[in-house]
Amino acid sequence: MNPYLHKVCYYETDQMGFVHHANHIHWFEEARLDYLEQVEMPYSRLEAEGLFIPVLSLECQYRQPVHFGDTVEVHVNMEEFGLVRFRLSYRVLDHATGELRAQGASTHCFIDGQGRPISLKKQDPARFQFFQSLVLNEG
Amino acid sequence: MNPYLHKVCYYETDQMGFVHHANHIHWFEEARLDYLEQVEMPYSRLEAEGLFIPVLSLECQYRQPVHFGDTVEVHVNMEEFGLVRFRLSYRVLDHATGELRAQGASTHCFIDGQGRPISLKKQDPARFQFFQSLVLNEG
Amino acid sequence: MNPYLHKVCYYETDQMGFVHHANHIHWFEEARLDYLEQVEMPYSRLEAEGLFIPVLSLECQYRQPVHFGDTVEVHVNMEEFGLVRFRLSYRVLDHATGELRAQGASTHCFIDGQGRPISLKKQDPARFQFFQSLVLNEG
Amino acid sequence: MNPYLHKVCYYETDQMGFVHHANHIHWFEEARLDYLEQVEMPYSRLEAEGLFIPVLSLECQYRQPVHFGDTVEVHVNMEEFGLVRFRLSYRVLDHATGELRAQGASTHCFIDGQGRPISLKKQDPARFQFFQSLVLNEG
Repeated sequence: MNPYLHKVCYYETDQMGFVHHANHIHWFEEARLDYLEQVEMPYSRLEAEGLFIPVLSLECQYRQPVHFGDTVEVHVNMEEFGLVRFRLSYRVLDHATGELRAQGASTHCFIDGQGRPISLKKQDPARFQFFQSLVLNEG
Repeated sequence: MNPYLHKVCYYETDQMGFVHHANHIHWFEEARLDYLEQVEMPYSRLEAEGLFIPVLSLECQYRQPVHFGDTVEVHVNMEEFGLVRFRLSYRVLDHATGELRAQGASTHCFIDGQGRPISLKKQDPARFQFFQSLVLNEG
Repeated sequence: MNPYLHKVCYYETDQMGFVHHANHIHWFEEARLDYLEQVEMPYSRLEAEGLFIPVLSLECQYRQPVHFGDTVEVHVNMEEFGLVRFRLSYRVLDHATGELRAQGASTHCFIDGQGRPISLKKQDPARFQFFQSLVLNEG
Repeated sequence: MNPYLHKVCYYETDQMGFVHHANHIHWFEEARLDYLEQVEMPYSRLEAEGLFIPVLSLECQYRQPVHFGDTVEVHVNMEEFGLVRFRLSYRVLDHATGELRAQGASTHCFIDGQGRPISLKKQDPARFQFFQSLVLNEG
């Protein structure tokens, strides 16, 4: 799996002189959706099929500030894929130096267009198995 | 009509040390929706009835920087309300001093849930007339 | 301490039809800065004195979606105030119903304008003691 | 000059189901800074030299909605470069089809770190001439 590259935008900084912490949450999302594309499960297709993936929780630890002009690479890992939720973790590195800038995780479930929880294992066992295999492959 | 008050958030600043210019566009929207509430035409009700109001164009002139901790007041004016589009203008003042910080305008039309243009005059003449009266009242 | 009120903006929603999860992080910040004002320690004054408060970590659990037009109230609690970091927790409730929408926490330290860590206890013992008292008062 | 490519992020959509209009302003900035890099005048270097480029005005006309998953290309053109301000224009096209999505413009001046206007022609005639030549080249 390739890391997701993001070049820091000026509007992502705040007056402290580096990237405002809420933007890392955006990068997690960008990297997550890139990850889904890389495993050929693009989120736009999932949504078109009525499968939505809201965020249940997230966390982020900020190690070093990120500055305008930096490029970061976000490494995504499928940590757990269970019956009711799954968990992805993220590592944000400076692309030039490889130094850790931040790390975090998010948990998710599947819902339909009306916001009702979906059991992927029941509704689409093949896809469920596929997602589970991502955990094993990275173990 | 009361101006809309907005207290500047830290995340709205950038590393230049004052508010990033894209946030004024957010304030215009906040003030526009507040305006619709003040005239008892809340946008959430319009959407619930299948009436959406996209932005066709916008413009903003920035006069003075706005800083974290400032409160701005946004004055909204219905400038034109025609058959196919309407135009609102905005003046952003510092709430403490009354000094002009920015001014701008946006134009809009009505569309339905499928993105098709709606003629409000045909579909809802009373509401059309009501919106037109806002222009006259402020003339 | 009064909760911080935030009326949900249209631009905070995404195409899932409710508030995008990164905005809760903005609300935490808004509530945190409001909290500092309520205890008469406004952040703009701290920055003017060369005392910056970056975010070291944050977490958020999303319980129920928040929709455009909702008003949320954010309750802030100083959970810990130690020698090198402090921790605030947040509860986001629907203002109309009191139902829990999300909860979370953030940890912070103090740095100077050059990004160097500051020991508040050494540099400003009175202020350190004041912040610690916030934990006790809420215990 | 190469157009700037931007892949639309999920967080850029709103509940109308397509990209919120304030994001185009972000894209203009991204494209503008990319343009400065392409002409080997990266904004981070200008800032390091104490030369800041605030936005004096902007305008955008929205032609067609942009959706999550789309890639847009932003074409930047230096339209005018005068003694006190300069003007860039932007065309946002769908990268797959080449169809126009939006177009706009921004005007700018130069200020120093204290917010005072700078006459580039006086302070740095060679750079002034260089920027002017961008207008001619594109004429």
